[in-house]
Amino acid sequence: MQLHEAREQLMKLQAKMSAFSHAMGLIYYDGSTAAPKGTAQNRGRTLSVLSEEHYKLSTGEETVALLEYLDSEKENLTEKEQRMVYLLLRSIRQMQKIPMDEYVAYEELLVEADDQWHTAKETNDFPLFEPYLEKIFETNIRFAKYCAPDMHPYDYWLNEYEDGLTMSQCDVFFATLRSRLVPLIQKIRQKQNYIDDTCLFGNFPEHKQAEFSDKLMEVLGLDRDHVTISTTEHPFTTSLGSHFDTRITTHYIPNNFASSMYSVIHEGGHALYDTGSADDLAYTVLDGGVSMGIHESQSRFYENLLGRSRPFIWHIFPIMQSLFPLQMQGVGAEDIYRAVNRVQPSLIRVDADEVTYCLHVMIRYELEKKVMSGKLSVHDLPKEWNRLYKEYLGVTVPDDTRGVLQDSHWSGGAIGYFPSYALGSAYGVQLLNKMKETVDVDTCLKEGKMEPINRWNREHIWQYGSLYPPKKLLEMALDAPFDPSCYTDYLEKKYKDLYGL
Amino acid sequence: MQLHEAREQLMKLQAKMSAFSHAMGLIYYDGSTAAPKGTAQNRGRTLSVLSEEHYKLSTGEETVALLEYLDSEKENLTEKEQRMVYLLLRSIRQMQKIPMDEYVAYEELLVEADDQWHTAKETNDFPLFEPYLEKIFETNIRFAKYCAPDMHPYDYWLNEYEDGLTMSQCDVFFATLRSRLVPLIQKIRQKQNYIDDTCLFGNFPEHKQAEFSDKLMEVLGLDRDHVTISTTEHPFTTSLGSHFDTRITTHYIPNNFASSMYSVIHEGGHALYDTGSADDLAYTVLDGGVSMGIHESQSRFYENLLGRSRPFIWHIFPIMQSLFPLQMQGVGAEDIYRAVNRVQPSLIRVDADEVTYCLHVMIRYELEKKVMSGKLSVHDLPKEWNRLYKEYLGVTVPDDTRGVLQDSHWSGGAIGYFPSYALGSAYGVQLLNKMKETVDVDTCLKEGKMEPINRWNREHIWQYGSLYPPKKLLEMALDAPFDPSCYTDYLEKKYKDLYGL
Repeated sequence: MQLHEAREQLMKLQAKMSAFSHAMGLIYYDGSTAAPKGTAQNRGRTLSVLSEEHYKLSTGEETVALLEYLDSEKENLTEKEQRMVYLLLRSIRQMQKIPMDEYVAYEELLVEADDQWHTAKETNDFPLFEPYLEKIFETNIRFAKYCAPDMHPYDYWLNEYEDGLTMSQCDVFFATLRSRLVPLIQKIRQKQNYIDDTCLFGNFPEHKQAEFSDKLMEVLGLDRDHVTISTTEHPFTTSLGSHFDTRITTHYIPNNFASSMYSVIHEGGHALYDTGSADDLAYTVLDGGVSMGIHESQSRFYENLLGRSRPFIWHIFPIMQSLFPLQMQGVGAEDIYRAVNRVQPSLIRVDADEVTYCLHVMIRYELEKKVMSGKLSVHDLPKEWNRLYKEYLGVTVPDDTRGVLQDSHWSGGAIGYFPSYALGSAYGVQLLNKMKETVDVDTCLKEGKMEPINRWNREHIWQYGSLYPPKKLLEMALDAPFDPSCYTDYLEKKYKDLYGL
Repeated sequence: MQLHEAREQLMKLQAKMSAFSHAMGLIYYDGSTAAPKGTAQNRGRTLSVLSEEHYKLSTGEETVALLEYLDSEKENLTEKEQRMVYLLLRSIRQMQKIPMDEYVAYEELLVEADDQWHTAKETNDFPLFEPYLEKIFETNIRFAKYCAPDMHPYDYWLNEYEDGLTMSQCDVFFATLRSRLVPLIQKIRQKQNYIDDTCLFGNFPEHKQAEFSDKLMEVLGLDRDHVTISTTEHPFTTSLGSHFDTRITTHYIPNNFASSMYSVIHEGGHALYDTGSADDLAYTVLDGGVSMGIHESQSRFYENLLGRSRPFIWHIFPIMQSLFPLQMQGVGAEDIYRAVNRVQPSLIRVDADEVTYCLHVMIRYELEKKVMSGKLSVHDLPKEWNRLYKEYLGVTVPDDTRGVLQDSHWSGGAIGYFPSYALGSAYGVQLLNKMKETVDVDTCLKEGKMEPINRWNREHIWQYGSLYPPKKLLEMALDAPFDPSCYTDYLEKKYKDLYGL
């Protein structure tokens, strides 16, 4: 084979893989948005065929030969090509370790599990979902053993979502957070009614909330020709085929407009990151975000660091007033700012405030760690979930719908994902500090001018897609190593101010 | 190869083909419903990969060997298997005649053409769409020449949509209709203001019309676990992967509720036919309707023969009253019945009354015939379109949006499809006459009991999917040959009564 031919083949291979992932991603997306209820099996059959084809394509003899040849010619490849070959070979070497029939069966399982989870959540019926979740954990352990027999299976999956992450790192990271946040939360608890958030609750008709979503997407600077919004049980973001087609979703709760508002801003952050990939990365494995941690650093950056900041709220308050004139009577921007930052130990992770949020994540981390280590059965998950919520957050879980069934991650097979939310939150604060050295962020927010902020993120994070590993990317952007104390400093400062501590 | 193995392989092959058609169908559906505007190229790339894979799968050496072996063992196959092998081999022999790169390029062209057509229709810009339409006609002629070099290319495509149909048959069929309908229309024209349809126009908010759609789907007996509705520029029906997942779409016009109402009933008829396939046909080529003519016989059966009948309107009138109480003040069921049957030569095919409808189809038939025969250029289509509308319907076309750009068929590559609408209308009347021998249709409609009607159609038409060729299926159901005069008799009787002629 000639090198220039092989380089062309490399691009063709990735274009094909993008097409399969477009088709499969769309089938999942359709399943959560538009598909009729009774069609999960139908989707499962199709996904099993497509994932088998995708598997053959990406691990087939021809592909392996191509990549090994290119790997041997590494020094004659561009930096981008080198990274493509590295990522493709890494995933092939992993996939080769998983028997194809098990891989295909897992894809089918996930489709059915997602369907059963929806029903189980709707009807508060954990036993319905239990056998599926058992199989998912069991498969995750099995696959981890195939791919990295010497690693703890949970370490394997943590590393999958955040390159280099281990349980011992998480243990240290969470311990740091705990040591700073638990005292802060205790102090805040003593001033329980210091902040009144009744202005967030009332009657906010869905079609008005939908208009608000459009306005928020405009403010964030999302390109509506390439990003669309729809509604699902659990909000998410997905890109189909390339970053040119990105979808976010939200969930409208009629008596609480802030819930969807922050879903839109959070998912909007993911979408900004995805669509910000350099265009020449499209249809390659370098397109889109590099890791879940970096992804969450962007989504939670927009959601909290900007979206829950005083100048942002002051800027969008007039939009709230015009869409909800009756509901906003007698309410001011500062009331909204305080209300969306009220600290209140609660049941639902996605609705949690910034301070208690990490405790929700810690609970999931501990539960996953126990199940993946064989120290807790899936059957006992709800009981242990409820116990930890009582212990960490002091709340009593009234049903599994608002407990162990609340998140879609497990039904989608994502075990080891949750820690990246906490990690991303911490990355985000350090990035913001760095950004503030050259961008007057507060003035931008007050004036609703997001472009300087987006430009900084595009230049330092988004444009690179998956070109650099997360640690390297972060250190390039920060010009310093990661330091979680930036995050705890930020939280202490903000909430001491808010609560007059 | 052993016969039992080959029979298993036959089912596996079809399951794979269903998966690809699921993925490709969903990408089209998504393009018309949920996808952001700027994503046509992204979809085009994916479809070109998937259609190439689909092409390889269905015309590959292994597949051909399998089917030829099964064909040689025909006498040991079931009736269903025989038909599967026949249909698959027929399509392979056709596809083998089309070079793969041209086939793939055509799929890509259609995605872009659809996108350009949407814009062109929105902005009344035929020249924007013209080069795409030119390529579509050109490719249709070229493909027909590859597949059937001795046939007129238009005959080739007519036969594709309705097995056995030719231009000479269409010429005779349309001449029959014309000879009976043109005098009827002239008589009706003399009583132009005899029917007042102002009750159909007014202010009908979209969300109320959407509720009405749900009610109509319930009345029709559609299974909402397997059939869903969304909105598109041009209403259509599609099944994804199997008849277990069927989608209909409609288009809401705020000042005219009957437009969407009849789209829902028409597409609902298609969906009833598709979802009515016997379950054991799923994931095979026998799943779903056999031809466009039979498909339209069902959709137009529900739309017109039932949906525009007096007892049906009397049954659903209370639903209209409850959803549109203000708009229905002073209006009675008989007023609605008369209004939805008002004969009025007009611009838009999908909104046309039953009597003038066939003239809309005839115009398209004549235009397609001319372009496919090289007697008319695509560039001159709008002029000729407008001339024929003036000549046949006496109406002046004010812009291409309401003229040559109104239908989505051509942008989707469907040339030769239109005649099946007229043919289907005629099949439908003869089927209704036959049904009435054993089912008290009027009483069923009056009482809103669709099941006996649906059961007859399911038994005689739907369950068979594509097991029998259309002509055979029709004659089995009718126990008689096709007779278009049933249709003209029906129209004359109904409209002489309505117009007191």
